Amino acid sequence: MLSQKSANIKSSPVRELLKYTKKPEFISLAGGIPATDMLDVDGIDTIIQDILAIDHRQMFQYSVTEGEAELRTEITKFNLHFDLHTPENNILITNGSQQAIDLLSRVFLEKGDKVLVERPTYLAALQLFSYTDAEIEEVSYQNNAIDLEALRSVLADGQVKMLYLIPNFANPTGHTLDYQTREQIVKLVHEYHVIVVEDDPYGYLRFEGEMVPSLYAIAQSMYGNNHNICYMSSFSKIFAPGLRLGWLAAPDKFLSAIVVAKQALDLHTSTFNQHIAAKYLASGRLMERLSLLQTTYKHRRDLLINALKKHLGDKLSYNTPSGGMFLWCHINLDINATDLLAACIEEKVIFVPGEVFFAKHPDKKSLRLSYSMLTNENADEAAIRIAKAIEKLQ
Amino acid sequence: MLSQKSANIKSSPVRELLKYTKKPEFISLAGGIPATDMLDVDGIDTIIQDILAIDHRQMFQYSVTEGEAELRTEITKFNLHFDLHTPENNILITNGSQQAIDLLSRVFLEKGDKVLVERPTYLAALQLFSYTDAEIEEVSYQNNAIDLEALRSVLADGQVKMLYLIPNFANPTGHTLDYQTREQIVKLVHEYHVIVVEDDPYGYLRFEGEMVPSLYAIAQSMYGNNHNICYMSSFSKIFAPGLRLGWLAAPDKFLSAIVVAKQALDLHTSTFNQHIAAKYLASGRLMERLSLLQTTYKHRRDLLINALKKHLGDKLSYNTPSGGMFLWCHINLDINATDLLAACIEEKVIFVPGEVFFAKHPDKKSLRLSYSMLTNENADEAAIRIAKAIEKLQ
Repeated sequence: MLSQKSANIKSSPVRELLKYTKKPEFISLAGGIPATDMLDVDGIDTIIQDILAIDHRQMFQYSVTEGEAELRTEITKFNLHFDLHTPENNILITNGSQQAIDLLSRVFLEKGDKVLVERPTYLAALQLFSYTDAEIEEVSYQNNAIDLEALRSVLADGQVKMLYLIPNFANPTGHTLDYQTREQIVKLVHEYHVIVVEDDPYGYLRFEGEMVPSLYAIAQSMYGNNHNICYMSSFSKIFAPGLRLGWLAAPDKFLSAIVVAKQALDLHTSTFNQHIAAKYLASGRLMERLSLLQTTYKHRRDLLINALKKHLGDKLSYNTPSGGMFLWCHINLDINATDLLAACIEEKVIFVPGEVFFAKHPDKKSLRLSYSMLTNENADEAAIRIAKAIEKLQ
Repeated sequence: MLSQKSANIKSSPVRELLKYTKKPEFISLAGGIPATDMLDVDGIDTIIQDILAIDHRQMFQYSVTEGEAELRTEITKFNLHFDLHTPENNILITNGSQQAIDLLSRVFLEKGDKVLVERPTYLAALQLFSYTDAEIEEVSYQNNAIDLEALRSVLADGQVKMLYLIPNFANPTGHTLDYQTREQIVKLVHEYHVIVVEDDPYGYLRFEGEMVPSLYAIAQSMYGNNHNICYMSSFSKIFAPGLRLGWLAAPDKFLSAIVVAKQALDLHTSTFNQHIAAKYLASGRLMERLSLLQTTYKHRRDLLINALKKHLGDKLSYNTPSGGMFLWCHINLDINATDLLAACIEEKVIFVPGEVFFAKHPDKKSLRLSYSMLTNENADEAAIRIAKAIEKLQ
């Protein structure tokens, strides 16, 4: 009785691996989740206590679809730290930024459309696009960079409605788009009337190098408010994923249709949770917190890389990401990542095989290692277990 | 650039009326929202304090898509008070029950399908179905009851995939389906393999008469777990809408596909909020609270009816609902509800014109009055203002 589409969509392997992460004897390099030990529980508790001390009755009541004015204002202020100008009225609060991708799919994609994605890209985005009537296509690459000439010709044929990008420390590759590429993309999508979904949950987690302006900011500087970039980010990687809070900034011409879709889907995001985030932002804690998170994740990235070097030598190759949570690896042996995962599960270490992140023609020798939960104590052990698993397979 | 569907879907007039409800000089009979003065703020605060006093770090972290085990268990227990047997493993936690309608639409509806709705029905459900490729049709009625023979012949032609029903104190009509009708519908949908979306946010708010078993319960007694009824309810009308918590109970054969859809849409519902609801249910407060809510809403229903009798005589006719929040009225004059609303806005009283609740052929002389926010002080004044508006139009 299921629809054809629904029958074809499988549960995320990442979520399926959760059952192992709950077992203490396992070391998880699987989830793209923030370190539990880094959650600012005391800070959030203080904010909640402050809320309970004031009149908060309305925070338990229905509210407006766009989101609480206080939170939208605080997000606008917060973004200024990152040279991002998102007026309150262009912001919609969502249940994590993933819902924003869904809203944009609903509002823009229909039969006959194509949606372009990076190769590889965020699994849940691929799942979401599979629920639409649009066709998913991958952008072409030339020496590990988006092939802009190829992109132009694809856009020129007029079927592409949407381009989905993770510009900073992408999931799963950890790759960041350089300024020139962003600028060219902004020009191309403007010329060909294509919407960009700029999904940026990791941008705050840069721990080296210069910040690259968002496509949203570049488009604003070129075209004012008449651009086609929808920017989204999340509090899930830097604050508290359990509160399910994300936000979307879209140009005026798009926002009202997106708000209507959110209204139909679930009316609005939790009023109470929005006020927790608003007061947390207002307290200034998050900006302090970010530098702590950046230092921690940088350290954990280095722990992982050093452990891999030490115990796996050149069996795996990878590029070093300058932010985020992911190390994207290639197996330099005649072993595919799914078999390696099976062997690793026996050794009690898990990761995500890269093939799940490809819209088509998966690279079966790629894998995603997340270092967000790694510690001084278990980094070496994680690499040793992977090495053991590889030996078994050789 | 919007999709055709999206371009055709307008914002809910109910939500648009919100701006008036924020003005203290207005009396609102518009929103289907629980009385703000009836929210158990102290009770909820106590629960939150209890949570902050225990180890709650994981409540700020990502969690499983199905929902927190504690909450699913408490909902299972809670439902037993209403002779509803929903095993934990058949429950999915959603962002309000509205999201459950969306999930079911995504999982089941595709091009060529028809979805049957009551006439009139919940506006947001109509909006949601409009985002799908399915065609919306209304069930036929005979003397104000669903025409079961007509229903059989519609189902027999094989195109209907889904039947959307609000069995108790329906929005907008306040109408409740009798046992015989429910039993017949359960048999028909089983025979013709049609899914029922049983949307029951108001069932807890019965203040007179005998409870009628849910279609879900009737189907279970007839077919065990192999039935086609998806039952959903919400904490928004009886607990705290601002926490955005609802839940869905579906038979085994459907649940996994629905969970995959939820996973793709927004991963899961707020972990923290789920624990607030779980502990509130465990405390037993909600069962106590219900009788208070029932008494209050019954009183407010009577306030409205008496005020209408006194100031409008037979200008409006309506049936008296035995639960819920809505009085569905017909204007016995040559005035349509949209013009009346315009005149009422000048008199500073608002309601929802009935026409927005019809999939097709709207009844322009119907209107929905909500008594949930009415008080001893403003009930008469509300009716007086409506009477004045009517006079102006005559």
